[in-house]
Amino acid sequence: MKEIFPSIGYKSGELYVEETKVREIAEEVGTPVYIYSKRAIEKAYREIEEAFSKVNLLIAFAVKSNSNVWVLKVLKELGAGADTVSVGEIFRAITAGIEPKKILFAGVGKREDEIEFALERGILMFNVESEGELLKIESVAERLNKVAPIAVRVNPEVNPKTHPYIATGLRSSKFGVDFETALKLYRKAKESRYLKPIGIHFHIGSQITDVSAFEEAASKVKELVKELQSRGVEVEYFDAGGGLGINYKPDEKPVPAKALAEALIPHVKEVNCKLILEPGRRIVGNAGILVTKLLYRKETPEKLFYVVDAGMNDLARPSLYKAYHHIEPVKEISGERIKATVVGPICESGDQFGQDRPLPLLKEGELLAVFSAGAYGFSMASNYNSRPRPAEVLVDGSNFKVIRQRETLADLISREF
Amino acid sequence: MKEIFPSIGYKSGELYVEETKVREIAEEVGTPVYIYSKRAIEKAYREIEEAFSKVNLLIAFAVKSNSNVWVLKVLKELGAGADTVSVGEIFRAITAGIEPKKILFAGVGKREDEIEFALERGILMFNVESEGELLKIESVAERLNKVAPIAVRVNPEVNPKTHPYIATGLRSSKFGVDFETALKLYRKAKESRYLKPIGIHFHIGSQITDVSAFEEAASKVKELVKELQSRGVEVEYFDAGGGLGINYKPDEKPVPAKALAEALIPHVKEVNCKLILEPGRRIVGNAGILVTKLLYRKETPEKLFYVVDAGMNDLARPSLYKAYHHIEPVKEISGERIKATVVGPICESGDQFGQDRPLPLLKEGELLAVFSAGAYGFSMASNYNSRPRPAEVLVDGSNFKVIRQRETLADLISREF
Ligand SMILES: Cc1ncc(COP(=O)(O)O)c(C=O)c1O
Ligand SMILES: Cc1ncc(COP(=O)(O)O)c(C=O)c1O
Repeated sequence: MKEIFPSIGYKSGELYVEETKVREIAEEVGTPVYIYSKRAIEKAYREIEEAFSKVNLLIAFAVKSNSNVWVLKVLKELGAGADTVSVGEIFRAITAGIEPKKILFAGVGKREDEIEFALERGILMFNVESEGELLKIESVAERLNKVAPIAVRVNPEVNPKTHPYIATGLRSSKFGVDFETALKLYRKAKESRYLKPIGIHFHIGSQITDVSAFEEAASKVKELVKELQSRGVEVEYFDAGGGLGINYKPDEKPVPAKALAEALIPHVKEVNCKLILEPGRRIVGNAGILVTKLLYRKETPEKLFYVVDAGMNDLARPSLYKAYHHIEPVKEISGERIKATVVGPICESGDQFGQDRPLPLLKEGELLAVFSAGAYGFSMASNYNSRPRPAEVLVDGSNFKVIRQRETLADLISREF
Repeated sequence: MKEIFPSIGYKSGELYVEETKVREIAEEVGTPVYIYSKRAIEKAYREIEEAFSKVNLLIAFAVKSNSNVWVLKVLKELGAGADTVSVGEIFRAITAGIEPKKILFAGVGKREDEIEFALERGILMFNVESEGELLKIESVAERLNKVAPIAVRVNPEVNPKTHPYIATGLRSSKFGVDFETALKLYRKAKESRYLKPIGIHFHIGSQITDVSAFEEAASKVKELVKELQSRGVEVEYFDAGGGLGINYKPDEKPVPAKALAEALIPHVKEVNCKLILEPGRRIVGNAGILVTKLLYRKETPEKLFYVVDAGMNDLARPSLYKAYHHIEPVKEISGERIKATVVGPICESGDQFGQDRPLPLLKEGELLAVFSAGAYGFSMASNYNSRPRPAEVLVDGSNFKVIRQRETLADLISREF
């Protein structure tokens, strides 16, 4: 196979995911359709696992990046835990068979019923984002007569040099607390009968390709851990969050997980902690594609448009973040390329997948693959323009399985009657 | 009532929608919840109707702005038609009882099955966006042995001075065709046994507050209509699209519908056409609010955050367009205001509803209303972060009705099994 991304590439002129022809899936399941490679997920997971083989590591998969229960089951089989941010994500993780003792619950707006759900299931720990939340967790734990294991999310104040929308480790952001506040919260937690500090958490942002930001953050947080240890707080887990970037362009290389390991391990060892990572994008991002059909080739005085049957409701990243996603036809076509702007059917100018992309001249009805769609793809999909959400398919070798059925018209209105 | 927006305001210190207490709805239905005022919808509709009383007008409500079947039913009772962009929207309009003969089908990416559905129902007309689409409609009509009534969407090339994401009438956009191409398409349509040109269409953008852009566009399109008439093409409908703006700030006035009438009517009369308008936002935008609960008041060294239980998955406009939405507490509180940044629970920095807003100091558990949420609110909602989508409620005087039930955890995964 001529790989474009791991386990996805051309064979005899046709795009394959593992040993399965993409065209055959599209013909059977229709378009648009998300297709994930089990093998690519496993490979990305194992790269991290191996890079960190010298430390005690829990990979808590960031469920927000891809929430499909069957994708979570693949990760569960690999030994993954789950980083969750809502009762819905905890519910999904548990449905996939992930043990509660491997589930983290993060997020700035945990509701009381969500805290209760998590406490009753016995999750590993709550990543606490504010004093108000700590008090809320304490009061729920008291009511249930349980002890809530907590970590405080701290802001190490490093600039991850990334998109401002996904830079989350800064002082002015809504996430986490500064170190001083953290010390205060740990003291409170230590004194409470219903709270037990067991870890520390930070997450500096997403799609980070320069590990020096991780190194800087880990170094700062390690100093805080030392301070905590000197005050008698036991910090068992050092949770360095997610955020390891991927290459959205096939001809670029992702920063190796090894580099992240080198940036983190010395600090974690120094304070004798177990390490937690919360990768999302890095595990599933390049393991998924969105396959869409060319509906119309529209020539205007200024541009050639390829109007496809997927829209920003199916894949929001290009319109939401102006994100780059590589696009290639499902049929391998050599020779000359023209410039085409790939747009969806939604009535918004922002509904487009790529401006002036070098692509072969395609006929209406041909299939296109939008790459790197495994993370923050389906999980962000909506029904905007009353479009039923697409199907999701998981490929395993030469077999594939529909892991989420395409929505129907009846589904659109079922909760209105 | 001290109105903030029509039919929504304070009475004895509490926020009401018409004669219904917002707090009572929130207590019964939970938060977050979308609440719409029937009376405000009716009022906005009638303002347009009256401004245009001197011409033959079809108000084809833009279903994409608010797709709830019960909202569509309110509009149906008023005599509205529907501007749709997908089979899902046609299905919703028909479910609401809107006659097919008042339904338009627009959009750059109409699929064959959607064209078939529309033709079989006997809709008023297809707003055609490209030559490829015209040929596709012709071939489907031929197969079904029907005649498809069409309008060509043209680009009048005016700059609506609006947000680039919603400016859709420009030459470089994916929408519509230039005048020369339009003449060619009308000739083709006239010659075809399966196509019948009956109208012309343009839509210059959304949230337009300066009617001179409408005047300019209508004037240009009128000249094209004259040219078509001289070539023997009967243009019965002059469809001037949607886009009339609203005031997102309570202390600003919206541009009156009368001004739009003055800009359009002379041109429409000159060519003896019936007028179609496709307003969405103008009818429902300010008729809806999103009610959310304050979960945590989070003080950081730089900012005070109000963390609420609604997120960008519920209302995407602030993160997607950096749109302004007015926010007030449901309980009227006079006196000093502090600056608070209102954010949701989603793990993205973009998940926020307003930066440094002057608001009273609120206690956790208090309710906030996000205004102008009736258009492009629920219709763009997603399940991101595995959050069940909120309920929708329609108020009619002192009664209210849940017009869409809150989603459940089971709903989230029901299509995965
Ligand atoms: C706390 C936390 N952990 C993990 C992640 C996953 O990030 P990524 O998919 O970039 O690895 C996120 C992303 O928003 C996050 O906010
Ligand atoms: C063709 C068309 N008509 C009508 C509308 C409705 O616009 P508004 O809600 O601004 O009136 C839109 C908005 O995208 C549109 O694209």
